[in-house]
Amino acid sequence: MDLKEFCSRMEQIAPRALALDFDNVGLLVEPDHTEIRKVLLALDCTSITAQEAIDLGVDLLVTHHPQFFHGVKSIGFSSPITGAAALLLRHGIGHFAAHTNLDATEGGVNDTLAYLLALTDVHSIPPENIGRIGVLPSPLKLSALVKECNRVLDSHGVYTGDPDRIVSRVAVLGGAGGGDIGYAQEAGAEAYLTGEAKHSQILEARERDLPLILCGHYETEKVVLKSLLDRLQILAPDVQYHITLREKAPLLFS
Amino acid sequence: MDLKEFCSRMEQIAPRALALDFDNVGLLVEPDHTEIRKVLLALDCTSITAQEAIDLGVDLLVTHHPQFFHGVKSIGFSSPITGAAALLLRHGIGHFAAHTNLDATEGGVNDTLAYLLALTDVHSIPPENIGRIGVLPSPLKLSALVKECNRVLDSHGVYTGDPDRIVSRVAVLGGAGGGDIGYAQEAGAEAYLTGEAKHSQILEARERDLPLILCGHYETEKVVLKSLLDRLQILAPDVQYHITLREKAPLLFS
Amino acid sequence: MDLKEFCSRMEQIAPRALALDFDNVGLLVEPDHTEIRKVLLALDCTSITAQEAIDLGVDLLVTHHPQFFHGVKSIGFSSPITGAAALLLRHGIGHFAAHTNLDATEGGVNDTLAYLLALTDVHSIPPENIGRIGVLPSPLKLSALVKECNRVLDSHGVYTGDPDRIVSRVAVLGGAGGGDIGYAQEAGAEAYLTGEAKHSQILEARERDLPLILCGHYETEKVVLKSLLDRLQILAPDVQYHITLREKAPLLFS
Amino acid sequence: MDLKEFCSRMEQIAPRALALDFDNVGLLVEPDHTEIRKVLLALDCTSITAQEAIDLGVDLLVTHHPQFFHGVKSIGFSSPITGAAALLLRHGIGHFAAHTNLDATEGGVNDTLAYLLALTDVHSIPPENIGRIGVLPSPLKLSALVKECNRVLDSHGVYTGDPDRIVSRVAVLGGAGGGDIGYAQEAGAEAYLTGEAKHSQILEARERDLPLILCGHYETEKVVLKSLLDRLQILAPDVQYHITLREKAPLLFS
Amino acid sequence: MDLKEFCSRMEQIAPRALALDFDNVGLLVEPDHTEIRKVLLALDCTSITAQEAIDLGVDLLVTHHPQFFHGVKSIGFSSPITGAAALLLRHGIGHFAAHTNLDATEGGVNDTLAYLLALTDVHSIPPENIGRIGVLPSPLKLSALVKECNRVLDSHGVYTGDPDRIVSRVAVLGGAGGGDIGYAQEAGAEAYLTGEAKHSQILEARERDLPLILCGHYETEKVVLKSLLDRLQILAPDVQYHITLREKAPLLFS
Amino acid sequence: MDLKEFCSRMEQIAPRALALDFDNVGLLVEPDHTEIRKVLLALDCTSITAQEAIDLGVDLLVTHHPQFFHGVKSIGFSSPITGAAALLLRHGIGHFAAHTNLDATEGGVNDTLAYLLALTDVHSIPPENIGRIGVLPSPLKLSALVKECNRVLDSHGVYTGDPDRIVSRVAVLGGAGGGDIGYAQEAGAEAYLTGEAKHSQILEARERDLPLILCGHYETEKVVLKSLLDRLQILAPDVQYHITLREKAPLLFS
Repeated sequence: MDLKEFCSRMEQIAPRALALDFDNVGLLVEPDHTEIRKVLLALDCTSITAQEAIDLGVDLLVTHHPQFFHGVKSIGFSSPITGAAALLLRHGIGHFAAHTNLDATEGGVNDTLAYLLALTDVHSIPPENIGRIGVLPSPLKLSALVKECNRVLDSHGVYTGDPDRIVSRVAVLGGAGGGDIGYAQEAGAEAYLTGEAKHSQILEARERDLPLILCGHYETEKVVLKSLLDRLQILAPDVQYHITLREKAPLLFS
Repeated sequence: MDLKEFCSRMEQIAPRALALDFDNVGLLVEPDHTEIRKVLLALDCTSITAQEAIDLGVDLLVTHHPQFFHGVKSIGFSSPITGAAALLLRHGIGHFAAHTNLDATEGGVNDTLAYLLALTDVHSIPPENIGRIGVLPSPLKLSALVKECNRVLDSHGVYTGDPDRIVSRVAVLGGAGGGDIGYAQEAGAEAYLTGEAKHSQILEARERDLPLILCGHYETEKVVLKSLLDRLQILAPDVQYHITLREKAPLLFS
Repeated sequence: MDLKEFCSRMEQIAPRALALDFDNVGLLVEPDHTEIRKVLLALDCTSITAQEAIDLGVDLLVTHHPQFFHGVKSIGFSSPITGAAALLLRHGIGHFAAHTNLDATEGGVNDTLAYLLALTDVHSIPPENIGRIGVLPSPLKLSALVKECNRVLDSHGVYTGDPDRIVSRVAVLGGAGGGDIGYAQEAGAEAYLTGEAKHSQILEARERDLPLILCGHYETEKVVLKSLLDRLQILAPDVQYHITLREKAPLLFS
Repeated sequence: MDLKEFCSRMEQIAPRALALDFDNVGLLVEPDHTEIRKVLLALDCTSITAQEAIDLGVDLLVTHHPQFFHGVKSIGFSSPITGAAALLLRHGIGHFAAHTNLDATEGGVNDTLAYLLALTDVHSIPPENIGRIGVLPSPLKLSALVKECNRVLDSHGVYTGDPDRIVSRVAVLGGAGGGDIGYAQEAGAEAYLTGEAKHSQILEARERDLPLILCGHYETEKVVLKSLLDRLQILAPDVQYHITLREKAPLLFS
Repeated sequence: MDLKEFCSRMEQIAPRALALDFDNVGLLVEPDHTEIRKVLLALDCTSITAQEAIDLGVDLLVTHHPQFFHGVKSIGFSSPITGAAALLLRHGIGHFAAHTNLDATEGGVNDTLAYLLALTDVHSIPPENIGRIGVLPSPLKLSALVKECNRVLDSHGVYTGDPDRIVSRVAVLGGAGGGDIGYAQEAGAEAYLTGEAKHSQILEARERDLPLILCGHYETEKVVLKSLLDRLQILAPDVQYHITLREKAPLLFS
Repeated sequence: MDLKEFCSRMEQIAPRALALDFDNVGLLVEPDHTEIRKVLLALDCTSITAQEAIDLGVDLLVTHHPQFFHGVKSIGFSSPITGAAALLLRHGIGHFAAHTNLDATEGGVNDTLAYLLALTDVHSIPPENIGRIGVLPSPLKLSALVKECNRVLDSHGVYTGDPDRIVSRVAVLGGAGGGDIGYAQEAGAEAYLTGEAKHSQILEARERDLPLILCGHYETEKVVLKSLLDRLQILAPDVQYHITLREKAPLLFS
């Protein structure tokens, strides 16, 4: 499939207009060939996934996170900011990112989280309309909800709040959702699942008396890769896809 | 002891000039009385520690984190940003914060971390001179170092890096140290202990091949309270001190 | 009356959307109780009116000027910026401000000024639509108009312009209206009444040949309190209101 | 005297380096001739003083206030911002301004105020070093001090504070000194004389319990013209000087 | 013709709303008289055209470029920024500028360029809609197009690109059009005529493989004067017009 | 020679501290190898010089201009901004830029220009100290000076000013020096040679009565390549150097 064509299918899946202002999405590294035959899907463009892309001989590495948000003034293999992108470019492989647009889009990161928790009556959370809020199949104790999150995400989530509180209406936002605690509460959430939050945000959740569940940035986002694959196989079926096998949760437990 | 006098002893312990530009330190809420007899020490000014201060009848709540960094345009009990400060003020209790100045000062947060890990040849990490770097009593496997961190901090730390790598030179920075990974590496660190880091910072550490140990924002900073108490008992001995008993690690494990 | 309900009645009287961007309006200090029974009305939240509020045992001090415009990073009794607000909070009394929204609203500061001068054919002055312009019942010499202003406002106004010039179309803007001289002239004013103006603005009025009458910031705004009282007694009749008795014109004549 | 030479004598009297950052001082309109024979001194460059300059046939109008602070993008007779400067230029007359540098300099506006009040032990007020503080020949009731100010300045000053309070240490700052109330108090002032202040600044003075005396922007600055004349007659004696006869206090009393 | 009337005719010819944000257009120097009888047209307001205006006794100098873009804080004959404007004002002559609005307007600079090259199917170039793009009467070799440009503009143009390339669709933008190379290409241009471009912009054109023809800022804009004259003679026929005779191309060939 | 070593020799030749703030200098694209054996020198990193670098099999392309000044958020072969850098990276070749630091350094662009014109008593031009000013071996008519510039630079320079004026003191600044006309004049220049200037800058030179000679951005800078080669052959003699043969003046004459 032609590169332009592939990019326009990605645009259908995660329209650029949905991305937040600060974001950097789309074709960030141009591949050698305009013919796309093989694509690797991963959360991050790192030296690990770049090497996997090289070893697989793909034409494009499609990731959730762009390798860099801010403009770079130099490009090098040994830079932690540009190293993986340089490696890809050196091997003629492109890099395409769908980030907050993939969070926000229908069937994206947060719809996938809502689906995995079997939420019903799912809506976007204003004003950014990236997160989702919905109702659990049946009310759960907070501790049971955390267990359910960990089960569906294969995570080791931690949380604030009374383990025995019964919750029904749950907000979800994959990745770093600590800045949206107030929005989740205004939307009516009784518990809020996200990936990571800063200390001050964790305290904010407690002051607001909104239970906060943190299951890991990686864990709350990796689930989108399967959804993305499904969409791509329908919209761009001529291409051969791989979901990364080498990318793992970056943190080890002691 | 007179309030002004007490503040000047705090200035000796954690000079305001050491604080970073963005910070908000010093006397943030003025108490009713200028006579300080009883003081509560805690990491955060929250509704929990404010209530503890009220119940103990202290004159001042001294914390590591200021309740707000940015200017506030209204003050209210039900606001998660100003609620605890309003509660204190309502009861005539003051709030004093020593934050990045307490991180940076001699005998502060990071010297305490270095002491707990028994580091020798301890230096400040340029350019901010807040973190510390030093040498372990004897080289350790990374996995053993993480265990040692967890032991001295009573934490459940996670980490990146090869568990079997032998490390000797360790950087420490309590709280949110993810932005200083490059500085730690330039200073020669073979492993870097901090409280929390964002996903992109965790990946950065991995790209830099610098083992990163995350033991929790709370856990890496609460250790300063005992050090602070010791200093205050020498410099302001007429005052009665309490270390918070109600403040706990904010996150529960599932 | 419930606090939320009271705030929504104030919103009817002086909608927040009418306030200028720089302004700080609404509930600036949260009271102890959500039940509002007694309210004190004044122009300013100062140590004088705060003490009056305490002595009267009101639940809320409603003023025209907010105590602070810009965000504050600390709160204290001895600060000239936050002292009165701290005093109120210490006694469980709230502070509500309706400022440029009360200037601009129907029946607000400037409609009251127009009413007191018996102006007819009254319109808002673009582009801010805060001031008013209208026609005197009959043309007056400028010196006579100044006398009339002083009579209705109980002020000692000063002015620029030819005392014998006959004027008919008058612009009014309570408070510090020196920045709107050009707008008043463009709207067709033959004389412009405001509270205070800077030296350079006074010269500007003279260069524009627009007579400028300065009757005092306090004097041109205090008249709104009676109007506000009337509105509140209709919209929130269950509450007992007091207009400040202790607040006086701040400047003495030698 | 050559224009450059005249400018350098003005530089001696009021060095440009003393001016505040926002200011616009020096030769703002270039005269036709480089030979300066006649100069008019005034506080402001207005259509009145510009016409006086034309009628007197001077080469230069030297004023305290620059006609414009901010850059102008067009120049016209009918503009209140540039009209007087255009008039001067049209007649080949220059405009030279010495503003905050003349406030701050030795023998300038504020030294003149201190001299008129017979202050002793006179010092500059940090951090701007524009105002002055000194001690009255003998302590006075505040009301008597205001009378004395009015006598020496030929003004109708107003004030805040207890008329019977005895004051001895007085700060002075000609013009709009309302922003420096805190600095005056920190410098030890028991009363503060300035020209004008905004309502919020008047309240601030009252909250700080610092008596504030407002004698008019014009009245507190016009006294510098005689001092300036004296300096010029010594430093540039070949030039013929006029102090404006047409410039009056801009405000009339009703 | 009354000055206001004349300005409104200029507004018809080159509406102010078409000017770019950074621009400074309209009546920049106000003339002595409000009666406009004689007008000089030129590209620039310089000491040469100002002197010509004086010698011709015109009331107004109408130019394409404003003498200054940014606000000026002083005005003088000897300043290269304000000298010509000061000279005009000194002689009671006004200065009116129609710049990017004259570039963009129907019948303005770029329509004139399109007309001179006999382009057909002429459209504005998005997004600024200042330049024009159209089709040559018949395809030309690039070298022949450059010769044609030089012939109609009386210029010594230089260019990048293969002299033998055949081009048909040409973009034109008088003056400094180097920043719009990408827009011209997106609009479909096969060659791009402008006045001047920076080195990096010339390289950009080459990297984009878009032939760039540089015929001089003066040469690509002076052609508008005749068009402007024609419009004015229809819209403001009572005025006597002169096109500058003294303004020449500013650069000499060695 | 090791890459780091080579970079430190370049630092000796053109210290980074001499570069202007906006600049982007140093190693902008990291090469595959850390061993530098062959280097190509050129003014610009373009698709032409990048291809030459590939064909020559060099390890590094050292140019005067960085390929991009501002941060880039994506990298691609087909982008006019990053195309050449991408091409180099794709082939494992590095890109090193020495720009305003090479202009300013001893023996750099401007010293070379001064040398070619045989200037004596050569000094840097404040405040940026990038340009140079010196005295011709003997005074020349301006027209003769232009001819001499064209001879030594192999250029087709144009100029403003009286061809018959005799000049002796000449300022030189390679590249785009139009912004420094005032500095050149203040430094005492009687003529000013630079590469390119904008129309408004050309008029400024004329208003200042300072003859301006424009010999082309390329032509006034390409002369540094030989000087740079000489320095490198002394400081880094183990490396084999090529001066570009494919880079030509970018503009053709019609």
